[in-house]
Amino acid sequence: MMDTAQPTPRQRYGTGRPTRALAQEVAVALSYNGSTQAVMMATPADLVDFAYGFTLTEGLASADEIETIEVVETPLGVDVQIWVAEIAQTRLATRRRNMAGPVGCGLCGIDSLEQAVKIPMRAEGGVCLSPSEITSAVQSLTDHQPLHDATRAAHAAAFWLPGRGIAAVREDVGRHNALDKLAGALVQSPMGRGAVIMTSRVSIDIVQKCAAMGQSMLIAVSAPTEAAVQMADAAGITLIANARPDGFEAFTHLDRITTGARHVA
Amino acid sequence: MMDTAQPTPRQRYGTGRPTRALAQEVAVALSYNGSTQAVMMATPADLVDFAYGFTLTEGLASADEIETIEVVETPLGVDVQIWVAEIAQTRLATRRRNMAGPVGCGLCGIDSLEQAVKIPMRAEGGVCLSPSEITSAVQSLTDHQPLHDATRAAHAAAFWLPGRGIAAVREDVGRHNALDKLAGALVQSPMGRGAVIMTSRVSIDIVQKCAAMGQSMLIAVSAPTEAAVQMADAAGITLIANARPDGFEAFTHLDRITTGARHVA
Repeated sequence: MMDTAQPTPRQRYGTGRPTRALAQEVAVALSYNGSTQAVMMATPADLVDFAYGFTLTEGLASADEIETIEVVETPLGVDVQIWVAEIAQTRLATRRRNMAGPVGCGLCGIDSLEQAVKIPMRAEGGVCLSPSEITSAVQSLTDHQPLHDATRAAHAAAFWLPGRGIAAVREDVGRHNALDKLAGALVQSPMGRGAVIMTSRVSIDIVQKCAAMGQSMLIAVSAPTEAAVQMADAAGITLIANARPDGFEAFTHLDRITTGARHVA
Repeated sequence: MMDTAQPTPRQRYGTGRPTRALAQEVAVALSYNGSTQAVMMATPADLVDFAYGFTLTEGLASADEIETIEVVETPLGVDVQIWVAEIAQTRLATRRRNMAGPVGCGLCGIDSLEQAVKIPMRAEGGVCLSPSEITSAVQSLTDHQPLHDATRAAHAAAFWLPGRGIAAVREDVGRHNALDKLAGALVQSPMGRGAVIMTSRVSIDIVQKCAAMGQSMLIAVSAPTEAAVQMADAAGITLIANARPDGFEAFTHLDRITTGARHVA
């Protein structure tokens, strides 16, 4: 990626864990009909899924409106060239004119506070799971994270189906990217009613992405923020977090959690 | 933030860890001379530091060019109004015209792959630390993370000074925000030669922010990406990661690590 000498060989000081492989992280540009919409640092895998998912969860176009996706490797990164139907192109151009600028992280560049906390369409119906299915879903994910196993530096987003188990997994150095890749995989191969599982914490934008995917249950290994809980409530999503082998916490729409021993802490 | 009923009370299923407080996460708009530049989800604390740091690490203006910062709370989030000198305003307007659009996370919105992997000015000199100082720096950070202790959902960025210890800490639900807040604290109250400590993984943009801060040593609790290592090498930054009580790994510019027992794994 950069025209420099190789870094100094890494050295371990003290004892500690074994040395692991480093995760790749490359600049990935997403362009629509020839114009760059965003550049993100991502794991260079499943980039067609990423293109579909980013397009969907950012509300840029529907999957039907995507005509072709071409992944072009360059010395500086990967240029993912998305070509969309004319109606989507018009919408994008309007949106682009309303955008402000550059960015740090999260919901950046969206030019108003109102946009940042907008409430998506409410999820109705969806999957119902028992507490033991939820615990089992989280546990089974650990067997499907090869990039994490190799690097300890990647997040996973997975889709779990009752009676089938983990049906899709995508990994990335960024948790938002992992979820967008999963969204893209699911929009190309719909799988019915299931739960999204994330290895990460849950910020508000993770919940917003799930809502844009039309998903009704989100299970995360780590904690949600207060805003994520409020958004899940408003979006009709069952939010389960701090999910570990010995239990979990449910924050919203508990009616999708079926019978089972409940211990209120 | 949202005009909805209170979420269903949270419920614990199974056993597991005690229930913790939820971290706040609010939409924070950063505007320059009246025009929104970015909206990010962040912990609503230390927002003046955040404004200084984001301005610095994104290269929008120097600290000297910032005339006033006003933090305005609104029902939808916080509007941080930054007023900069005319020369910086002209630069911002030019940059804004060159921007493309919305975003997911990381280096989003910067309209080219080249921008995303640009090599910053090379750090020269800087602090030198012994392996025991490095281990001690990481360990001492655990006593300075009240938000993390309460929520288990926040990252910290800290500045460690030889002979003094932890001299500044900022926490945020987002690791980029935590580092920007630290950058803002340091630019307002310079502290001499020290090391930046992060509780997170190290992606390329974390290294780029350290370079923009003029820092020469970055110590992280978790793993770096390959691109982060390459960037640290190019930027002249000593990158130390996987730093735990029993040891750490050094990836670049090991000459700033002074004598001490070295075990090559």
